[in-house]
Amino acid sequence: MNSQQLENLVHKEIPITKALDIRIDELRNQSIRVTAPFETNKNIHNTAFAGSIYTVATIAGWSLVSNLASNLALEGSVVLAKAEVQYKKPINGDIVAQCEIQEQSSLETFVSSFKRKNRARLNLIIDVVEDGVIKAQLNANFALVGH
Amino acid sequence: MNSQQLENLVHKEIPITKALDIRIDELRNQSIRVTAPFETNKNIHNTAFAGSIYTVATIAGWSLVSNLASNLALEGSVVLAKAEVQYKKPINGDIVAQCEIQEQSSLETFVSSFKRKNRARLNLIIDVVEDGVIKAQLNANFALVGH
Repeated sequence: MNSQQLENLVHKEIPITKALDIRIDELRNQSIRVTAPFETNKNIHNTAFAGSIYTVATIAGWSLVSNLASNLALEGSVVLAKAEVQYKKPINGDIVAQCEIQEQSSLETFVSSFKRKNRARLNLIIDVVEDGVIKAQLNANFALVGH
Repeated sequence: MNSQQLENLVHKEIPITKALDIRIDELRNQSIRVTAPFETNKNIHNTAFAGSIYTVATIAGWSLVSNLASNLALEGSVVLAKAEVQYKKPINGDIVAQCEIQEQSSLETFVSSFKRKNRARLNLIIDVVEDGVIKAQLNANFALVGH
């Protein structure tokens, strides 16, 4: 998929993401950047809302795993099993969530596990950044569940 | 505050909560129930979206702490510092998040700490329930930061 196709998929699979105005900004095979505008997701204190920060980060992970599965012809649904989020500093502008799979071995284990058991898990760290600083971080565990 | 006043405050402070159609369903001094309708927050697989589940649970905690602070005349902003969420089972209907402060001592520590340092933290467990079963659980750490 390209970024526009993946964005369309996200909006179709999870309609509320349109209300948050979530966009797939950049997509590579093992990395992604997902954004949402400040105006739509700010609170009265003029900082980004914690729930929106979490949701944008979650969508980054979900989209990256969905795209990987599609590219590798692994047919299944991507489900978030658990997550930990840390809010380090307030965000005063657009929400920008980035994720990159750096350990090739974790991806290989994920793929071989899915091929063997029709089910596999992948742990991702998603950074929410502003002006080069990590303002929030999500540690999320996704499952790909075969049909 | 009563539940309607608190709901109005949530919608005013965090406008995106209106798009998710988040409602304060029941409010007592030390407990709260917050809901959001299935239709608005479902995904294509006909289960509630993980991001919406998290957000409704977060709003339950945020609202309960805001109401407590208001009742106790502690002036400050309620900020979510970190959270852990576990998705145990799919939710096939409305999102219903419940939270009750059961340990009186944690509340007393929170109040005395705020009075001394103009800043205090409170840890809350928020259950997301359906048909009497806990389908997801949020362990969230809120800070009340004095003005």
